[in-house]
Amino acid sequence: MTSSKQQGRRETVLRGIGVAPGVVSGEVRLIRPEKVEPPERNLAKSEIPKEIERFEEALSQTREQLHRIQSELSQALGREDASIFDAHLMVADDRSFIEEVIREIKEQRRNVESVLVQVSGKYADVLSGVEDQYLSERAADVKDVTQRILRNLMNLSETSLRDLKEPCVVVAPDLSPSDTATIDREVVRGFATNLGSSTSHTAIMAQTMEIPAVVGLHDVTRRVAHGDRVLIDGGKGLFIINPTAKRMKEYGKRAEEQRHILHELEQLREQPAKTADGYAVRLSANIEWAEELRLLRKHGASGVGLFRSEYLFLNRAEPPSEDSQADVYGSVARELAPEPVVIRTLDVGGDRILPSEQTSNELNPFLGWRAIRFCLDRPDIFRPQLRAILRASRHGNVRIMYPMVCCTKELKAANRMLEKCKDELRDEGVEFDENIPVGVMIEIPSAALCAELFAPHVDFFSLGTNDLIQYTLAVDRVNDHVSHLYEPTHLAILKLLQYVVEAGHKNDIWVSICGEMAGDPVLAPLLIGLGIDELSVTPILAPMIKDVIRKLKYSDARELAQKCMQYRSPVTVRRRCRELTREIAGEVLELLD
Amino acid sequence: MTSSKQQGRRETVLRGIGVAPGVVSGEVRLIRPEKVEPPERNLAKSEIPKEIERFEEALSQTREQLHRIQSELSQALGREDASIFDAHLMVADDRSFIEEVIREIKEQRRNVESVLVQVSGKYADVLSGVEDQYLSERAADVKDVTQRILRNLMNLSETSLRDLKEPCVVVAPDLSPSDTATIDREVVRGFATNLGSSTSHTAIMAQTMEIPAVVGLHDVTRRVAHGDRVLIDGGKGLFIINPTAKRMKEYGKRAEEQRHILHELEQLREQPAKTADGYAVRLSANIEWAEELRLLRKHGASGVGLFRSEYLFLNRAEPPSEDSQADVYGSVARELAPEPVVIRTLDVGGDRILPSEQTSNELNPFLGWRAIRFCLDRPDIFRPQLRAILRASRHGNVRIMYPMVCCTKELKAANRMLEKCKDELRDEGVEFDENIPVGVMIEIPSAALCAELFAPHVDFFSLGTNDLIQYTLAVDRVNDHVSHLYEPTHLAILKLLQYVVEAGHKNDIWVSICGEMAGDPVLAPLLIGLGIDELSVTPILAPMIKDVIRKLKYSDARELAQKCMQYRSPVTVRRRCRELTREIAGEVLELLD
Repeated sequence: MTSSKQQGRRETVLRGIGVAPGVVSGEVRLIRPEKVEPPERNLAKSEIPKEIERFEEALSQTREQLHRIQSELSQALGREDASIFDAHLMVADDRSFIEEVIREIKEQRRNVESVLVQVSGKYADVLSGVEDQYLSERAADVKDVTQRILRNLMNLSETSLRDLKEPCVVVAPDLSPSDTATIDREVVRGFATNLGSSTSHTAIMAQTMEIPAVVGLHDVTRRVAHGDRVLIDGGKGLFIINPTAKRMKEYGKRAEEQRHILHELEQLREQPAKTADGYAVRLSANIEWAEELRLLRKHGASGVGLFRSEYLFLNRAEPPSEDSQADVYGSVARELAPEPVVIRTLDVGGDRILPSEQTSNELNPFLGWRAIRFCLDRPDIFRPQLRAILRASRHGNVRIMYPMVCCTKELKAANRMLEKCKDELRDEGVEFDENIPVGVMIEIPSAALCAELFAPHVDFFSLGTNDLIQYTLAVDRVNDHVSHLYEPTHLAILKLLQYVVEAGHKNDIWVSICGEMAGDPVLAPLLIGLGIDELSVTPILAPMIKDVIRKLKYSDARELAQKCMQYRSPVTVRRRCRELTREIAGEVLELLD
Repeated sequence: MTSSKQQGRRETVLRGIGVAPGVVSGEVRLIRPEKVEPPERNLAKSEIPKEIERFEEALSQTREQLHRIQSELSQALGREDASIFDAHLMVADDRSFIEEVIREIKEQRRNVESVLVQVSGKYADVLSGVEDQYLSERAADVKDVTQRILRNLMNLSETSLRDLKEPCVVVAPDLSPSDTATIDREVVRGFATNLGSSTSHTAIMAQTMEIPAVVGLHDVTRRVAHGDRVLIDGGKGLFIINPTAKRMKEYGKRAEEQRHILHELEQLREQPAKTADGYAVRLSANIEWAEELRLLRKHGASGVGLFRSEYLFLNRAEPPSEDSQADVYGSVARELAPEPVVIRTLDVGGDRILPSEQTSNELNPFLGWRAIRFCLDRPDIFRPQLRAILRASRHGNVRIMYPMVCCTKELKAANRMLEKCKDELRDEGVEFDENIPVGVMIEIPSAALCAELFAPHVDFFSLGTNDLIQYTLAVDRVNDHVSHLYEPTHLAILKLLQYVVEAGHKNDIWVSICGEMAGDPVLAPLLIGLGIDELSVTPILAPMIKDVIRKLKYSDARELAQKCMQYRSPVTVRRRCRELTREIAGEVLELLD
């Protein structure tokens, strides 16, 4: 029995950041806890022999695992002697080390986990204190073996998301886009992570998959054990361990109300996204996979404002072929026609790394070799994608969009490559849309400040507000230390949005927003008031945004935007926006608050 | 004899980024090559026995080193048996491994270094291919031991900057601020690094220390060996291995000419920084240590526009005490009075990490917990600094400046803490300048875009262009993959500078630039034309900038700035600026071109 299970008997409420609304309860499955933290406990004298036995058992389990690894290795190397790689095994076999742990269990009358961590910590400290790279790495061996022994003591096997079969709530230090890509919605009913912010990719994925989730819980992986009963409130950002019967009942009621509101909103599916005074806004969807098209229909979004093509490239050793890309893009185009699909060219780097490109270790990946920068340097990857998109264009209303452009030089280079691909296809007699619209993401401050320079080269702008905010405020949105500075309503952001709309409209350029800001019902009136033509959102959020739009007066939105440009504080801006949304569509805020 | 020494006999010219002008020649000292790259060479049959002997010698050297490490470890652990940490030693002792290397030397007739890398690479691949963390870490062991054997084969001992005694040219993968802080100018006559850009800290340090340097040379650590004769041209960015006699003569002449121009410029020391038509510009200096004040006098800068206080904090286990800070700031203030010193509060994080704060592992440190963000969270460090600056203020003309402010919330919080410190000092009866001017760095796009919001809270703005450019263009200036996108003359940057000057002057706020842009003789006329009141530069650059200012007409600068705001391409802007500087002060460009 671990202490986290003991703690678990009382109800514990943790507050994090709710990223996908909805309430769900279930049993915890811990996924790859980066580091096991030991429970701490005093022992009665009578418990000591049992504790030593637990230690010996865990050691023998550890040795078995290590021997199995060694034999795998021998096979892999094709030779019998694989003894040269057994530093771990030696730790697990080291009698002085083992005896020191046993002695300390007896003397301190403390549980084996806490004593083990002490003793191995002492060893590791001594090792890493010596100024030699070799020795400091041996310290890592000691720590690793200790973790393995601890996992065995605590019955924590390493679970991977793919292995899950029973419905559960996943708890993990963090989930990468490739982790979340393997999630089976039927099995993973909700998830909670230590890291993350409201705009991290984990959050976006939770919304896309419509899985209630709470992120930014700091040490949730330490607070729960496999099998703990928990309740997730993805709207309020609560993670409740061992909820009481009363709590469960309350939440049952709340879930019922939410279902009712959502049901009402679903009725808007076929309604146009038009304000009460008749101003039409385009409401489209952000998707990652072709399979999500069903969500557009379900939630009533028109077309795809952002197809994140990089998800075709993740989770595979090599980039997909031109043909397979053309198939995917073509099928999406066909299924959506005559509604448009905006295909964003490969946006890797930053927090999305191609498996085939693990070499580049960047100090600041968000300011590094990403997206169009990567693609322009890698025509072997960019060209097949451009050709695939062009080939797909004959099947529907396909648009192409370049991410992370910071200067016209890049935009022109991308367009030149596109023209070259068109020439090739013409020569090959392959049909495509000769007038395929080309757009550029405005997500770097310089792009916003110089949008007018981009205008002659494109047909539309799409504001990527997540990155734009991040760069404008110099805040990494997934860094807990500074995420409190990430303010979508900072005057600097509003000025940039206004500037881009003005530069766009002056040049007959359509202006969309595909960042998270577009999916925030509180901010939708402000964005519309600033003149944004299109909001492209995660499908699940479309009904709420549509409800707000349909109850909004465009004239009120204009007035709100004008006022907001005068406020000095981001908090005031958000409050005024909130007041308007509450006034016209309070039920939507019910879902989130 | 390694092949790099053999190559060395021919003259080889490498092009990098020249960051501190001047020509110097000397013998190479390689500092901490991160990874040894093996020379490759075919062998005559007769050379094979000698090659095997070399291998055996290096192995025995390696074993000796490892045994020494082990015995140090035994002592440290206070026990005889330290055998649990000898994976490395086992690699060096593994007969199958050794025999495979020897067999391949014979079969391929290749030098031991290249064969060793092949064989160990094969082992490491097999290991890391197995899906197990334990095994993939053993792959690292194999690689580490291979590196140790290679270093022994190539006679590369690990040298640290502190150990250097004889004059030399330092060649390193990169130099951190703390590395460069230990440099003895009498010993290190020049340096060259693989990494770095014109605005990296290595570059700034080279300029501060007036040491000719070339950075961004990619693989220079592979191209030279200890003792190679090289010549550095820090103006042109050339690194010449084994320069010919002819080359040395040419450079002797060039060095003579440069000395002449520099001597002429030094004559401007006592002259004011006033344009030909009488417009006064303040020309001040950026310094890191009090010792640099002598450089201000030598190069004729007025006051300190940026005192980077963080250098007091680096290279020491704990932050300096309030008293010791007050002493340093006070002595600088006294020595400069009545000229001002602008003390920037602690700017750590990013690429400058406090030794006492190694815990925070940030994915994107430049977008992370830096400078004022760190200080506001750490009053235990910030308060003593503010008090020390206040205490120093009675000794001269002290100003205080906050770095990395992105919103008024932070600025107000910093000012509140400053007021609290003033209250304390009043209570304690400690004298200080009640009207100490307070300024804010404008180095984040949001700060530039909302400079008018900052105006009521400060007395001056100081544009930190390095970071401002970096964030505005989303380009990490030290990332080789994207540094080509770092464009100080991008229209977005010019717009921000113009905006800050307008917002400043409208509110009677003095506007300075303390980033690298200020020290570029090509850009000085543009900055003055944009209305910048003060250029704060590395002392060594002050004479050049002063020369340009004194030969410039303010009316021409205004005209240039107006024109530059119309150009679409950063290249055009730079070209026009260059034309003007060449026209009025061609000899300054001689020093740099």
